[in-house]
Amino acid sequence: MTDRKTALVISAHAADFVWRCAGAIALHQEKGYDVTIVCLSFGERGESAKLWKQAGATLEGVKADRRKEAEAAAQALDAHDIRFLDAGDYPLALDEAKKFALVDIIRAVQPAFMLSHSLYDPYNTDHMYATNVAMECRMIAQAWGHNPGQKVLGAPQLYLFEPHQTEQMGWKPDVFLDITPVWEKKRAAIECMQGQEHLWTYYTNLAENRGNHFRRNSGGQSGGRPAKYAEGFQSIYPRTVDEL
Amino acid sequence: MTDRKTALVISAHAADFVWRCAGAIALHQEKGYDVTIVCLSFGERGESAKLWKQAGATLEGVKADRRKEAEAAAQALDAHDIRFLDAGDYPLALDEAKKFALVDIIRAVQPAFMLSHSLYDPYNTDHMYATNVAMECRMIAQAWGHNPGQKVLGAPQLYLFEPHQTEQMGWKPDVFLDITPVWEKKRAAIECMQGQEHLWTYYTNLAENRGNHFRRNSGGQSGGRPAKYAEGFQSIYPRTVDEL
Amino acid sequence: MTDRKTALVISAHAADFVWRCAGAIALHQEKGYDVTIVCLSFGERGESAKLWKQAGATLEGVKADRRKEAEAAAQALDAHDIRFLDAGDYPLALDEAKKFALVDIIRAVQPAFMLSHSLYDPYNTDHMYATNVAMECRMIAQAWGHNPGQKVLGAPQLYLFEPHQTEQMGWKPDVFLDITPVWEKKRAAIECMQGQEHLWTYYTNLAENRGNHFRRNSGGQSGGRPAKYAEGFQSIYPRTVDEL
Amino acid sequence: MTDRKTALVISAHAADFVWRCAGAIALHQEKGYDVTIVCLSFGERGESAKLWKQAGATLEGVKADRRKEAEAAAQALDAHDIRFLDAGDYPLALDEAKKFALVDIIRAVQPAFMLSHSLYDPYNTDHMYATNVAMECRMIAQAWGHNPGQKVLGAPQLYLFEPHQTEQMGWKPDVFLDITPVWEKKRAAIECMQGQEHLWTYYTNLAENRGNHFRRNSGGQSGGRPAKYAEGFQSIYPRTVDEL
Amino acid sequence: MTDRKTALVISAHAADFVWRCAGAIALHQEKGYDVTIVCLSFGERGESAKLWKQAGATLEGVKADRRKEAEAAAQALDAHDIRFLDAGDYPLALDEAKKFALVDIIRAVQPAFMLSHSLYDPYNTDHMYATNVAMECRMIAQAWGHNPGQKVLGAPQLYLFEPHQTEQMGWKPDVFLDITPVWEKKRAAIECMQGQEHLWTYYTNLAENRGNHFRRNSGGQSGGRPAKYAEGFQSIYPRTVDEL
Amino acid sequence: MTDRKTALVISAHAADFVWRCAGAIALHQEKGYDVTIVCLSFGERGESAKLWKQAGATLEGVKADRRKEAEAAAQALDAHDIRFLDAGDYPLALDEAKKFALVDIIRAVQPAFMLSHSLYDPYNTDHMYATNVAMECRMIAQAWGHNPGQKVLGAPQLYLFEPHQTEQMGWKPDVFLDITPVWEKKRAAIECMQGQEHLWTYYTNLAENRGNHFRRNSGGQSGGRPAKYAEGFQSIYPRTVDEL
Repeated sequence: MTDRKTALVISAHAADFVWRCAGAIALHQEKGYDVTIVCLSFGERGESAKLWKQAGATLEGVKADRRKEAEAAAQALDAHDIRFLDAGDYPLALDEAKKFALVDIIRAVQPAFMLSHSLYDPYNTDHMYATNVAMECRMIAQAWGHNPGQKVLGAPQLYLFEPHQTEQMGWKPDVFLDITPVWEKKRAAIECMQGQEHLWTYYTNLAENRGNHFRRNSGGQSGGRPAKYAEGFQSIYPRTVDEL
Repeated sequence: MTDRKTALVISAHAADFVWRCAGAIALHQEKGYDVTIVCLSFGERGESAKLWKQAGATLEGVKADRRKEAEAAAQALDAHDIRFLDAGDYPLALDEAKKFALVDIIRAVQPAFMLSHSLYDPYNTDHMYATNVAMECRMIAQAWGHNPGQKVLGAPQLYLFEPHQTEQMGWKPDVFLDITPVWEKKRAAIECMQGQEHLWTYYTNLAENRGNHFRRNSGGQSGGRPAKYAEGFQSIYPRTVDEL
Repeated sequence: MTDRKTALVISAHAADFVWRCAGAIALHQEKGYDVTIVCLSFGERGESAKLWKQAGATLEGVKADRRKEAEAAAQALDAHDIRFLDAGDYPLALDEAKKFALVDIIRAVQPAFMLSHSLYDPYNTDHMYATNVAMECRMIAQAWGHNPGQKVLGAPQLYLFEPHQTEQMGWKPDVFLDITPVWEKKRAAIECMQGQEHLWTYYTNLAENRGNHFRRNSGGQSGGRPAKYAEGFQSIYPRTVDEL
Repeated sequence: MTDRKTALVISAHAADFVWRCAGAIALHQEKGYDVTIVCLSFGERGESAKLWKQAGATLEGVKADRRKEAEAAAQALDAHDIRFLDAGDYPLALDEAKKFALVDIIRAVQPAFMLSHSLYDPYNTDHMYATNVAMECRMIAQAWGHNPGQKVLGAPQLYLFEPHQTEQMGWKPDVFLDITPVWEKKRAAIECMQGQEHLWTYYTNLAENRGNHFRRNSGGQSGGRPAKYAEGFQSIYPRTVDEL
Repeated sequence: MTDRKTALVISAHAADFVWRCAGAIALHQEKGYDVTIVCLSFGERGESAKLWKQAGATLEGVKADRRKEAEAAAQALDAHDIRFLDAGDYPLALDEAKKFALVDIIRAVQPAFMLSHSLYDPYNTDHMYATNVAMECRMIAQAWGHNPGQKVLGAPQLYLFEPHQTEQMGWKPDVFLDITPVWEKKRAAIECMQGQEHLWTYYTNLAENRGNHFRRNSGGQSGGRPAKYAEGFQSIYPRTVDEL
Repeated sequence: MTDRKTALVISAHAADFVWRCAGAIALHQEKGYDVTIVCLSFGERGESAKLWKQAGATLEGVKADRRKEAEAAAQALDAHDIRFLDAGDYPLALDEAKKFALVDIIRAVQPAFMLSHSLYDPYNTDHMYATNVAMECRMIAQAWGHNPGQKVLGAPQLYLFEPHQTEQMGWKPDVFLDITPVWEKKRAAIECMQGQEHLWTYYTNLAENRGNHFRRNSGGQSGGRPAKYAEGFQSIYPRTVDEL
């Protein structure tokens, strides 16, 4: 473990981290954080339609392709590390061994903050399952009786990144992050997702509109910061501060 | 207007700011802010039971006593300024002139953040009325067509301070402020409230327990900050940041 | 003021108390309470369609007819008293004088509990307005500085009686009252509402089905009480008890 | 009154209908509806920053400019009619006479459905005020005792159009409308808003992304309709149907 | 697979579909749909009290009786098909094989819409479990990598049918279906439930009262449709339309 | 089974029942109830930090210590019985056999009411898991087909006792219990928790402040009961009563 600050992304499928928090990853890397990405699955069954439409597609082949894409995206973001738990998707399911493997990663990383999915998602039950696992494994990582002797986890914030149809998920952002300085990296990571080209414009539009929200909330027509691109996050836990 | 940062408290009755955000006031004064307190009423009818039980009590006499207490409390906190709109209580009601007077104060202060009551309070409709007025006047202060030529307001956060029975009000804190360095000042302000001595212990207990929440959320048994006293606040608007 | 326990119903329109809490009124009268009903309006404009369809209908005529119906219903329930504030409907609006008149009634009655409408009603804004007035006037009645010397109000529960389409109003009952012993009185009061005969069966069905809910929640197939008719209520404030 | 179906838009300020439901207006006009737009105010004080920054701006001048823009936008959409109640903004406030004027319009139009703002908006209290007025006046228009002899209103749906920051307003769309056939008209109406050019791209991005939501919810990669632009709406009342 | 439209009901126990959506089943059959009912369990342990009170009752015997009742009810409704997964009740639990069997049915049926239970039910955790399974299996059925080559599922609506005590379940109907034309069939299906005769009147009352809600929401005293019986449903996903 | 009334506490970890409902336990014992406590786990991994910091700590040793503490606390409260299911913690997980063992206890006890955790707890997923198990096993205990011949359960209330940070858990008390008469017993039980001395003051403060809430809700300055200590609870099910 180095002296650098760290962060941890828990992504249900291989591509989720790209659409939803690539800006946060790239930005914090530039700020001196080491950001580790954990993909619980490759999204091999449920989020690889284009690959399955090709003749001769196999599960292992699809997983390999998705892994390559995700690694390329992580590289485009200068992410410190990307890990794959290969827990299966549609449905995603982690047994105790997989959960403890995730706890090992959390403890090894000792993140200053964590990122995962929304609490509710009626379109994609894998997403809300991943969030529950994130909360559960964060708790286990804090237990002094789990692998006694290891450094236990403190109380990192768990940010929920933006789901696809925010209002349907009951997701409400309470923080907007200005990702203008790293937008080109996020766009590059997005373009690694060759199988989902129909979403490139969608998430570019979204980043621009979140930039508008950043400007409004930082002062609007009287003092607002001219952010061009932003990402939104919902906090699970309250913050502790010395100044409001 | 000076170069100092500023904050604005909108208190429905004369004593609300003491129980609910005296720590925030004293702390930000120490940090170089100028904090202005606006009491919309004196709480003269509804929150002065002890005074009304005295023989010969009159409305003007009660208001004068409550004003003196509030001014003493503000002084104990080193608050920059305290203003009284005298809009009446039980029920509190501001006509357009009073609202525009509040807008004048908001624009003169140009607060970096504002503080007011919870969104809902079935025990005390004055409290939720005050919050609605705070949101409405914040909006008017942002209007370029209101008293054109004046400096319009930016987009300050509106923090909701802690109501009496939090769960009944649907109030959920998302930020805890460590007020340990100014606790003695808050306690001194509390003791200015001679008419409500039964609440001194209550709010001391509360500050200690919020200190526990501060410790838990800042790391618990692994890295938590040893705050002894804290206050909680609920944010209305999302934050805009450069780092999570 | 007698030694009898008392209760107070605040009804936006003249007929609301019949459909929504006639059972509670009759039952508590039988138990020795004095129940006072306040009709804020007659429902003369918005809830008297049948009367307005008659040739020569006038506002005063409609009000007189509605008053007669309401008085007959109150009599059928043996209600202690029924009062009419005549504050107008569609929209209902109480100025300060009307509110203080309601406060006078609250203080005179000193109710052990109060009854009014749901917190939200997108079909009928008068209903939610009445509930807000009930909360506001309950607060004023508690103020030692309002008409000093009068006996101030304690902290009576405010029960919200059942609105027409419960789910649309966000109303959730937390208490069911067995009104089997007084069902005939409620039915008689319902039949006083000559202008709304289409609702007689509706509210009879409802009382039967709420009876089913009473049976289920009191033990179901293992010990449930065989109530045949019930009414549901939502409490605004927590209860204080010596035994769970 | 003609035999054509009708709809009614209630817009707090002069430009709201453009950003939020211009597609619905143009589309229903093409489908044979007569759509009437009511602007409760011109947004003259609070939503005309660019005009106020011009030398010599006056309230009447700003109102005239805003009126022209709104009329041009209505024309671009082929809207049947646009009406201005001139009730003032920041804050918006309708007295009884203005409310009854709105009721007159509702009854004259006899809309098959109505459109207005979200139920909550902490950035803009005029918006939520307008929605409350819409619900209240819909209720008054249904009253047989209001201007007896006039045709009373049935039970039109009230759709809440999309607010600026949906998640902060607690707004959740339950219906998406494909506005691809009339997109050019909406864009033309948007471009009438010369004072708010910074929002043109914002609402174009939004319409594209809502198109994505339309595609997903109509079948996604297996049968989804290739809508390019859409608008979202939240229904206040349940629908009544003969087939699910 | 035929050219007829189809629908799918997912019922936790054998009788749920009768009380909660028998009208929808019969009506859509009459409209030319093929409606398939899947009973995840027979309700053999938890919803067969009357049978267990008989001497000599056995699990297999109870299951056989419940199956017969359910088949008779399905026949009374002219339902296209009824299937039993026999996954056990109190608690209901589907392993991966059972879930994939349900996915097979979903894909074979290719429903235009699905029906299941409420999202929350503190009285009956089997009910909310069934809804989660419905959402999860709908998602798996959409996965191109699940049994590649099969026709994947589009995006059918998931309607939540009416639970027993709606307000306790947080269930809010957004659509009412007029089942007057098929009421006799629903009543006949209800009367197949010999073990639960105490519920016959309950659900008849309910259907009548939902008819009242249909009338109100379709126009009330000015244009409402004279439906005598109705059923209510809550939609999980937004609708996509060409006209509001 | 005796003729005494009974109650059942379901505690995720060994100490939860002490902080959260020790007053209710001691009070009901004094009132003639037999209160049984079930600890699903010892909190051996996640809530025994102090023990794990000691040299040579082992899982069995920690469990034994926690058991002793819990038994001492139960004794201090005169609790009728305390049972340990030893299902493991961080994460807590009950297989079918453990669940059925809990059902056996529920049926043997036949509680008049049950107590467990809040519905949501992002800090401690064991807590919300325990509540779900409580609801599920209450349902199984009501099933006539589960161990036919045994006495089935009626419909006992399930009270949710107070979690650590109430607002974060969405917990809202609807009943306050005056525990003044047994405060010394609760304090004695608290002091059995040698490993968590930092919480003694916290829960004493809390009990005092809940006493304030009791006083307010029982009448405040006009008739309030002078309770010094109280506990709060949230009810899952509606009550059935003969008098409001």
